[in-house]
This record gives sequence, structure tokens and C-alpha cells, in this order.
Amino acid sequence: MIEPVDLLQKFSLFSEAWHPKIAGELNDSYVKLARLKGEFVWHHHENEDELFLVVKGTLTIKLRGRDLTIREGQFVIIPKGVEHLPVAEEEVLVLLLEPKSTLNTGNVQNERTVEADWI
Amino acid sequence: MIEPVDLLQKFSLFSEAWHPKIAGELNDSYVKLARLKGEFVWHHHENEDELFLVVKGTLTIKLRGRDLTIREGQFVIIPKGVEHLPVAEEEVLVLLLEPKSTLNTGNVQNERTVEADWI
Repeated sequence: MIEPVDLLQKFSLFSEAWHPKIAGELNDSYVKLARLKGEFVWHHHENEDELFLVVKGTLTIKLRGRDLTIREGQFVIIPKGVEHLPVAEEEVLVLLLEPKSTLNTGNVQNERTVEADWI
Repeated sequence: MIEPVDLLQKFSLFSEAWHPKIAGELNDSYVKLARLKGEFVWHHHENEDELFLVVKGTLTIKLRGRDLTIREGQFVIIPKGVEHLPVAEEEVLVLLLEPKSTLNTGNVQNERTVEADWI
């Protein structure tokens, strides 16, 4: 079914941080929605560029050597191979776009690694 | 350079309707920004799914047999092969995500066909 997806309506259906949900698929990528709160883990994605679009809040993405601040209505693309650490002092709602093969923790597999489910 | 992109700031840099601008690239896709006003042309994309995220305004996408209404904060994915006609009664600002190979008019080439430039 081809139907519009309302971002805030989808976000209202879950509350856990760092558990991206799949909200759409196109070509070989997923559109995911995630709530971020606190600090994630340093990681990179070997083969996948990743887009973060901030829907609500202010996201910090630490790179080795500098910090990016991504505000509501802004996006950033982290190219493959670039180490990054997302940090959300206050809760942030983000739309992610990434190839279906992308693992949330990239090259790292630990207790923060999760499979995304459809929402 | 890895830098945040502010959607509304980018939209402020151009005013023409139906001339998508490239605001980012990831994997084999472009993130494009477009102002839509009025009616486009019926077309489909042979090999590419296409995402429309409405940043401002209300977009109608006519399909053969029914109309979709996509409001601010909503997205829709039009799968490859599906004929569609975007219509914007009032001006609409959209973020598009589509493979780099995508032509704006899909299978149709006419005076509405344009190459996207970076912004």
C-alpha cells in the first residue's frame, strides 16, 4: 500500500531510545525513526553512508577531532568509514536513512546492537 | 566536508518551482530539495523508488485511481513503475530522496525535464 507516513504519529508508538524502527523502504535502503537519549558508542559503518535528519531536539555527533551540532530541520550525512558518536543531552527524534545492510552499531557488536523492526 | 544542512536555509536560496536542487549525497542517492507549485506531469520512474518528505505545505500526489495527501511532517514513497502526478495547489517545499540516475520527469522527456544542480 502506498500511504503517507506521519513522523510524529509513528514516534508516538514507541518510547525506547536507541531502538530504530523501520518506517519505509526504498531501493536498497530503509527509512528509520529513532529516539536518541544520552551517549551511544563510537562506531563507523564500513560500507554505508548514513543520513541523520533531526525531527525534534538538538543532536551532537562527535567526530574524531570535532563535534557537529544538528538542530531541528537540519540533516547531516556521515560517510562510510567515518567514526562517529551520537550524543543527545536531551531526547532527540531523528529520521535515519541507510542501506538495509546497516547495523546500528556499525563495526561494533555489543549490548547496544539491535535489529530494527517495522513500525 | 561533513557539515549539517539546514533545510529552510537552503530553500531560501532559490525560488523556482519544479527545479530540484541537490543538497546531499549518500550511497548511490541524492537528497534533493524542491519547490512545487501547480501541476507537474504524469510520469513514472522505471527503476527508482522515490521518497517525498513534505517540509512545508500540503502536497497532493495523484495516482491512477486515487489521490494521496501528504502534509507537513509526512513522507510517502512512490515505488518504481507507479504512475504519479504531483500537484501543489499552494507552494509546497519537499525533500526528495532518489537514486542519482533519477530524471525528474521519469519516463517522460519534455520541457519540464531539468538537470538538478547542487545548492
